[in-house]
Amino acid sequence: MNVQVDTPDQKLRARAQRVIPGGMYGHMRSAGLPAGYPQFFARGEGCHLWDVDGRRYVDFMCSWGPIVLGHKHPAVTEAVQRQMAAGDCLNGPSERMVELAERLVGLIPHADWAMFAKNGTDATTTCVTLARAATGRRKILVAKGAYHGAVPWCSPYPLGVTAEDRAHLLTFTYNDAASLEAAVAQAGDDLAAVIVSAFRHDYGLDQELPDAAFARRARELCDARGAALILDDVRAGFRLTLRGSWDLVGVQPDLSAWSKAIANGYALAAVTGNERFRDAASKVFVTGSFWYSAVSMAASLATIDELERIDGPRRMREMGLRLRQGIAAQAAAAGIGVRQSGPPQMPTLLFDNDPDCAKGDRFTVEALKRGVYLHPRHNMFLSAAHTEADIDFALEATKEAFAALAAR
Amino acid sequence: MNVQVDTPDQKLRARAQRVIPGGMYGHMRSAGLPAGYPQFFARGEGCHLWDVDGRRYVDFMCSWGPIVLGHKHPAVTEAVQRQMAAGDCLNGPSERMVELAERLVGLIPHADWAMFAKNGTDATTTCVTLARAATGRRKILVAKGAYHGAVPWCSPYPLGVTAEDRAHLLTFTYNDAASLEAAVAQAGDDLAAVIVSAFRHDYGLDQELPDAAFARRARELCDARGAALILDDVRAGFRLTLRGSWDLVGVQPDLSAWSKAIANGYALAAVTGNERFRDAASKVFVTGSFWYSAVSMAASLATIDELERIDGPRRMREMGLRLRQGIAAQAAAAGIGVRQSGPPQMPTLLFDNDPDCAKGDRFTVEALKRGVYLHPRHNMFLSAAHTEADIDFALEATKEAFAALAAR
Repeated sequence: MNVQVDTPDQKLRARAQRVIPGGMYGHMRSAGLPAGYPQFFARGEGCHLWDVDGRRYVDFMCSWGPIVLGHKHPAVTEAVQRQMAAGDCLNGPSERMVELAERLVGLIPHADWAMFAKNGTDATTTCVTLARAATGRRKILVAKGAYHGAVPWCSPYPLGVTAEDRAHLLTFTYNDAASLEAAVAQAGDDLAAVIVSAFRHDYGLDQELPDAAFARRARELCDARGAALILDDVRAGFRLTLRGSWDLVGVQPDLSAWSKAIANGYALAAVTGNERFRDAASKVFVTGSFWYSAVSMAASLATIDELERIDGPRRMREMGLRLRQGIAAQAAAAGIGVRQSGPPQMPTLLFDNDPDCAKGDRFTVEALKRGVYLHPRHNMFLSAAHTEADIDFALEATKEAFAALAAR
Repeated sequence: MNVQVDTPDQKLRARAQRVIPGGMYGHMRSAGLPAGYPQFFARGEGCHLWDVDGRRYVDFMCSWGPIVLGHKHPAVTEAVQRQMAAGDCLNGPSERMVELAERLVGLIPHADWAMFAKNGTDATTTCVTLARAATGRRKILVAKGAYHGAVPWCSPYPLGVTAEDRAHLLTFTYNDAASLEAAVAQAGDDLAAVIVSAFRHDYGLDQELPDAAFARRARELCDARGAALILDDVRAGFRLTLRGSWDLVGVQPDLSAWSKAIANGYALAAVTGNERFRDAASKVFVTGSFWYSAVSMAASLATIDELERIDGPRRMREMGLRLRQGIAAQAAAAGIGVRQSGPPQMPTLLFDNDPDCAKGDRFTVEALKRGVYLHPRHNMFLSAAHTEADIDFALEATKEAFAALAAR
């Protein structure tokens, strides 16, 4: 007798297959993860996550970035409930929008003003549009392999994109000043902007922190050419520092794109800029139906206050270092070569001699079985909700995962 | 002695001027409205809105479309609170995403699948990308003056936009089959899609419902050329019918873009499509940090259920007709020529011999003083929260506004 018992996750996948293209799309498609990972989730509390099959995980993806204080943080929830009782999407913004713009201007050294949107891609696209509007030029320099969003001008996959969508993009290599100089020369007097990620966090590769000399050279080149230096801080913003990630290397951009962690999971993005770009920002037409909604701004104010109060970036760094040191010791003890890269708050863990990521897949699936949600290829995220006990729980799981790997 | 008393709205405007470019941006910038209109809002309840100065309005903008059941509708709030208690932005979608996709596929005749995003512009841009991906062609036909979003390919203002962003757009005149045929011929074998609004709702102009013969011809031309017929239902969707706005003229699109009213003010957008575009939709890379969040999907399920239960489109139509008939009688009695256009659920009111909109500005300011929020140029929006008593209250105000206009 062949009794097949489908789990809730399997049943939902079958239903999704009929009404959602490919069963799911985008970065949250579980097809990008090894077999065994759930597609659908039921609940989140702090740094814990439950899938629809009732399995609980200590989570190191933080919803791919947005959850920076932990799910359902009481200070954020309270601010959200208070604003919901008044109003969210009205005929214009609420006072929260002014408060949040003032907060960002007070917090972020380069920021003289702020604008708000919903997606990280809204913010990067607005920065590019503002750079072109302010300079009257067209060329945008992007690092090879960098992810700046998922619309035609920046999408990592070419399907549905025309050549013209990228007609004015030129590339350089992150942290390679000579390649940036060459791209600047190539752009000539048509250089509108250089856009850089907070650090090199390309999918499936070792991460690279920005080299301070490279960052300074990028600033000099933009200044010399009257171009905009755009920092794409969508992924890293509010995790490494509250002041903008390149503040750590002493370089201020002209324009910054923010999203993900800005409101602890509420949908919000922001652009901040300096005086030089204020006039263009007041003239360019960018907008969206929900861009002025008050609840996500109330959530952001509470999130930033709490991150500042507890020094969230330092706490995430400490917990990230505890995880990194534990994994390094376990790998060494198991005689397995691993590479841990990127800032401790956003670690990437890759295995030596693992071109198809088979070791990474095996390792993360073993950890998953033991209640720890890691990613085999993408950078991961710590939140301020991770405690030493959570990290130690995770290290128990990774220890067994290394043992399983060593036993092969 | 010169005593200046600033209102809360004025104080907020002064603060905003320092930290938000131009004091505000986009469609919710009050600079686009006559003097006297508030910029900042404090509260919403049903069809009523309070500005930060404590003035209450019967509102006919509905947050420029999203509010379709009225602010803080109890059924939506209950669904939202229930989902918030579980989780919103997790490592993947919740069951709500499958339920909502199933609901849309069950409700909308052309829909075999659904995808979700955050902005109307995300949805229109995804439709265009899908059309290009599926056809391998590039040309997109858009109606002159139509608004399909606020990113470079479709922005109504050219600042910051390059020629290449619009290299593959060709234009036709809405409701003019001959002009559409000419544009199709011009696109030749490179025609990817024709994109149409639910009806012609261009800013500052009389609105035009779609002509059924034009709609059928658009369908025929797309079929004959193997191109996609894209319906931009972002503004009108869920107000005229729950089945997609061109269902009213008996024509089904291949792809539809939805947002605004889909979740009664919660940030959500959707693309629906038929089988022909499913494969492309499963391959194109479109995504966003908050696109899988469960709360806005729970809100949408509750919104659609309630709109269906009460036949929201019919109710909005009845209240819109009551307003239209009342205004027509008042205008005739006052001897003032007005034109009311568009579907009753989304009325536009323009004055004869009013090239600079001075009459419209005066009229709406007089109504505003009497607690009724109208728009002098843009189409307005009814919600299912508007009662006969609210319409009659509004008609008292418009009667006095006509009298004030006649007294000039």
